Amino acid sequence: MQVSRPTISDVARAAGVSKGAVSFALNNRPGVAADTRERILAAARELGWTPSSRARALSVSRAFAVGLVLARKPETLRADPFFPSFIAGVEQELAAHDYALLLQVVADQQREHDSYRRLAHGGRVDGVFVTDLLVDDPRIALLAEIGVPAVVVGPALGGGFFPAVGVDDKPGVAAAVQHLIDLGHTRIAHVAGPAAYVHGTSRKQAWAETLAAAGLPEGPCVETDFSAESGAAATRTLLDLAEPPTAVVYANDVMAMAGLAVAHARGVDVPGELSVVGYEDTELAAHVQPPLTSVATDVVAWGGAAARRLLELVDGREATEPDLESPRLVVRASTGAPAR
Amino acid sequence: MQVSRPTISDVARAAGVSKGAVSFALNNRPGVAADTRERILAAARELGWTPSSRARALSVSRAFAVGLVLARKPETLRADPFFPSFIAGVEQELAAHDYALLLQVVADQQREHDSYRRLAHGGRVDGVFVTDLLVDDPRIALLAEIGVPAVVVGPALGGGFFPAVGVDDKPGVAAAVQHLIDLGHTRIAHVAGPAAYVHGTSRKQAWAETLAAAGLPEGPCVETDFSAESGAAATRTLLDLAEPPTAVVYANDVMAMAGLAVAHARGVDVPGELSVVGYEDTELAAHVQPPLTSVATDVVAWGGAAARRLLELVDGREATEPDLESPRLVVRASTGAPAR
Repeated sequence: MQVSRPTISDVARAAGVSKGAVSFALNNRPGVAADTRERILAAARELGWTPSSRARALSVSRAFAVGLVLARKPETLRADPFFPSFIAGVEQELAAHDYALLLQVVADQQREHDSYRRLAHGGRVDGVFVTDLLVDDPRIALLAEIGVPAVVVGPALGGGFFPAVGVDDKPGVAAAVQHLIDLGHTRIAHVAGPAAYVHGTSRKQAWAETLAAAGLPEGPCVETDFSAESGAAATRTLLDLAEPPTAVVYANDVMAMAGLAVAHARGVDVPGELSVVGYEDTELAAHVQPPLTSVATDVVAWGGAAARRLLELVDGREATEPDLESPRLVVRASTGAPAR
Repeated sequence: MQVSRPTISDVARAAGVSKGAVSFALNNRPGVAADTRERILAAARELGWTPSSRARALSVSRAFAVGLVLARKPETLRADPFFPSFIAGVEQELAAHDYALLLQVVADQQREHDSYRRLAHGGRVDGVFVTDLLVDDPRIALLAEIGVPAVVVGPALGGGFFPAVGVDDKPGVAAAVQHLIDLGHTRIAHVAGPAAYVHGTSRKQAWAETLAAAGLPEGPCVETDFSAESGAAATRTLLDLAEPPTAVVYANDVMAMAGLAVAHARGVDVPGELSVVGYEDTELAAHVQPPLTSVATDVVAWGGAAARRLLELVDGREATEPDLESPRLVVRASTGAPAR
């Protein structure tokens, strides 16, 4: 039996506002007065409007595919170890339900928005992932308006209109910095990822906050583009300082490994003169010399949990709570007490 | 104007054989007598049957997606640096034509075949890539029967019914071995990838053939699963030999880097006592200590060329010859003359 489900237009009519205002309110974005927002949310609740209802009403037949649109250059897609692991986890879950992943890599944000519209309206996907989240991300309102089920990959931002499945990387970085403080380090530097990424910024914040909590001064920080080359350059910059750090926390393993090589080439003993910590615990981390202390996150499980949540949303099933472990510090021989 | 195009059934009828026999003959597989094969190919030519014609006749509207089905465990998808680069290249080309990639990872070959059928018959893709090619691959006959345009990623095998876009990795390995011979090495080992993969086997063959051509004995060879851990273990095995090699050619960079670390931990000087060569020239290769000699292949360009060829096939356009560079040896400090 097919029943008529409420659309975003019904919500707008009931609340006496525009469709755009409904999208904004549902996404908890600024620009809608608090009482208007309340009225819209009440109307949505009353009508039983959910992100997936419109899509379910529209599509009698399933596409058996979910979409992932990335506004990225191919080079940055290639260099980022997150996506192969994430996609591997997504595919593992999708395979169990005979779903496919529709992957589209586009040049800019405008094309990204066009892609989402085309995929959803063409009935080519039953739901979408939203990754590389920006603060106040315009895609949330867009997807709410399109009415396609969506899962945000990353921490919940704003009102959290769509469910978010994410792993907070802050505890991992905090554990790394605390480990170095416990060993007796007081000059702890950070080689950060690009500030434009949410996870680049959050790792830097965790480093600064952990130092502050211990009453230590913020050590030097160098921003990079996540590449081995930029990690090597950042390490040279840090070692050239009048008072170089005795420990460095890198935002990924590849940069930390490049850092190990710079230290080795300069005759700087690791960990005697310099402790080195990576992030991601890639397979190679345990097999460099000295083996790399790093922060492990199960990105495959993360991808699986995001896919599970999206299929639950598509099916209108009850959400199961994702059972994702917090990042954990894996201590190896690249960290030790500082020289006195 | 829509004209009726010949189907594989038409070819079978014209040649007086079964549809299966047509698939086998078009794929140049064994099991069809030579004269029968000739008759079938002649009938196909006469009727103007092409791999894409049936799909074009079937699909009035485009799916604007091409498919890639991988029968792989998520772990091996994650660990293989080939796919992110390949997919990045594919997406770059697809984005220019507003195409998406439909990616499906399945558990086994039966599900893989089911996937191809479902994608093609459901009109969800306009063409497919075939990767991880096996000798006498059953998918070729399947796809010929389905009549979906396909591009084989890798060297042309058998009759080459579908166009193949590939980079032969043999010249790269041969150049690496020759470089070591020129430096004066005579005991050159190989740490090989899994023999089940075509590229695992071809790299090993190139190593053995180059040694034979130089009149040198085949050095020890250890088969691995391409992981850092197996690369480290293989290196230990080689260094424990009564007469250890003075140089090792690894089937990928990650294993070579793990090998560098084993040598370093044992106090074996690189390249003084051991020369090390990788394969792939990953970004990190130039930033380990000593910087790694490796073989560079432009996998992104390869993905782009495969996508271009597939879209040409979908559109029934003339094939442009892919302009792909041969793998080239990048010599860095991890190789040198052997100690006397």
